[in-house]
Amino acid sequence: MAELKPREAVRRMAPYSPPTAGRAGKLRLDFNENTVGCSPRVVQYLRDTLSADALAVYPEYGEAKRELAAFFGVAEEQFLLTNGTDEAIQVLVNTYVGEGGEVLLLKPSYAMYRFYAEVAGASIREIGYRGEDLAFPLEELLSALTPATQAVLIANPNNPTGTGIDAAGIVRILEEARGAAVLIDEAYFEFHGVTALPLIERFPNLFVCRTFSKVYGMAALRLGCLFTQAANAAYLRKAQSPYSVNALAALAARAAIADPGYIQSYVSEVLAARDLLIQGFERLGVPFVPSRGNFVLFRAGARAIEIRDHLRERGVLVRDRSYELPGCVRVTVGTREQVRRFLDELEKTW
Amino acid sequence: MAELKPREAVRRMAPYSPPTAGRAGKLRLDFNENTVGCSPRVVQYLRDTLSADALAVYPEYGEAKRELAAFFGVAEEQFLLTNGTDEAIQVLVNTYVGEGGEVLLLKPSYAMYRFYAEVAGASIREIGYRGEDLAFPLEELLSALTPATQAVLIANPNNPTGTGIDAAGIVRILEEARGAAVLIDEAYFEFHGVTALPLIERFPNLFVCRTFSKVYGMAALRLGCLFTQAANAAYLRKAQSPYSVNALAALAARAAIADPGYIQSYVSEVLAARDLLIQGFERLGVPFVPSRGNFVLFRAGARAIEIRDHLRERGVLVRDRSYELPGCVRVTVGTREQVRRFLDELEKTW
Repeated sequence: MAELKPREAVRRMAPYSPPTAGRAGKLRLDFNENTVGCSPRVVQYLRDTLSADALAVYPEYGEAKRELAAFFGVAEEQFLLTNGTDEAIQVLVNTYVGEGGEVLLLKPSYAMYRFYAEVAGASIREIGYRGEDLAFPLEELLSALTPATQAVLIANPNNPTGTGIDAAGIVRILEEARGAAVLIDEAYFEFHGVTALPLIERFPNLFVCRTFSKVYGMAALRLGCLFTQAANAAYLRKAQSPYSVNALAALAARAAIADPGYIQSYVSEVLAARDLLIQGFERLGVPFVPSRGNFVLFRAGARAIEIRDHLRERGVLVRDRSYELPGCVRVTVGTREQVRRFLDELEKTW
Repeated sequence: MAELKPREAVRRMAPYSPPTAGRAGKLRLDFNENTVGCSPRVVQYLRDTLSADALAVYPEYGEAKRELAAFFGVAEEQFLLTNGTDEAIQVLVNTYVGEGGEVLLLKPSYAMYRFYAEVAGASIREIGYRGEDLAFPLEELLSALTPATQAVLIANPNNPTGTGIDAAGIVRILEEARGAAVLIDEAYFEFHGVTALPLIERFPNLFVCRTFSKVYGMAALRLGCLFTQAANAAYLRKAQSPYSVNALAALAARAAIADPGYIQSYVSEVLAARDLLIQGFERLGVPFVPSRGNFVLFRAGARAIEIRDHLRERGVLVRDRSYELPGCVRVTVGTREQVRRFLDELEKTW
């Protein structure tokens, strides 16, 4: 009898192992996390709620869903809690993309779009961000749409380029891709301010996701939200495990949205720090790509990896993106103090 | 242009929404959880480790993987941490089962096997548990195997029947299903004592999973482990999101396995309580199916739902299984004191 063989789609995939080890104690400017941590109220709430009895029980999401729906201004039927944005992408792909189905992506972008499209055995087409500025390639994307396109997955603003697409551009895509599930991933929304969320009422092919892993400082807990019209959400729920989100993430989200001042003040700090970073880049003559997120891509050229390694030795972690954008390094923007430290270390090696 | 349409496989699926709401404050004998809670050391460890900074960081699994590998007696390359057993099933199906691929299941069994096989668009064949005793249908399963079978998903002991298959039976399946991924889901292993785990060295088509949601009392945290030969695990990892397990689950597991006495003592209590339950059933003349798990199926006949509702009104939750086994109700076994309370309430309505 035959031997066990994985699916061809999986066999073809490259292993993906992001470099998440040994980050403790370092200045972590490599994953676009909140660099000062989540709201202290989240920690306090988890401490107060933790009990041996509560941990033994399968998660119940009722209260979290009610409060999050109110916070985001949608009906409970219009969204799903997901195990990070990753599960949002996976459930969307599993619901709308069949083996061999056409998926349209941008390049470079968040790795998990391609990942889940590959697991699904999709036929993937990638459109490159345009020119030196890495601008959103709207016309190229519109031209690449076909009646067979089953999904279009877009980060806005995009990671790692930091560039974005405006609401008018999103509307054009939604109008021309009516047969496709169009995901607008707003992981960095809070730094950008542009959202497609209100458009879900108008476009039945629109899906928007948000995360608690970035500005909210809860990456360890894994929580995302996926928004769409109620009829779509009912299909998505059929393809989602009923307990994929852990109970502490749901509890933490309730505490996090009850402390909006904390988020506002962190966003203000990051925007001020981003200005400071850009001034520093200009002073040092470091070419960079203007960004709408809490990270900036700079062009380190042939010394990109050497510079990353130098920074790491000095306790500052940044992310090399040379494999997709030659010579480019991405640095997360935290506080002004953290930017100063990064610039000090960069100056020594630049 | 066409309208957005979900995949046929998803459209065909029935919505699955387990009744997890309003369970607080009741005696929860409906989900086979640990009814007294996880080890207090788990709670203490989480309280001590929680911090705003730690929650902001993407999970790192290195230490948890090392300690769990040692605990289970496998190499780190021979297992994956998963977001509950559910993700173990999903990753296995996504790795080995293509659209239209043949999957062999038993009936009735854990709902998520069928769920993920359906999401994958598999062709599903189900073999019924046999006779009044709901014995494992070994010969029928062996006859149903074909060269096209891509996966065989088995719970041992099985939920909700409580019946099991012995090691010799598992070996026969593994020998005859060499081209299929054979999953032995040991969610209730600790109450049963039979494991296929050592067989992974010998059979490259064997996958074994364990969970921290049952005896360990950590269902809220979502953690499972999937064991197989290193070559298979490398493929599975390619189909798994790199951050599907939240950091607190990984931390909690380390504390949980450091307190094996707590688990041993809970297992002893449950086994004593199961004897007490069976004596009670015999005294009351309630027909039941002998079980190897921390739950027992009893035959309530035409009054199954009425009896469940009566118990619920009295604060005792049990699970009606009439939709798959007419007249059957499943009750989780907790402590002897909890069994006495359940029997008292049952007696009033029986």
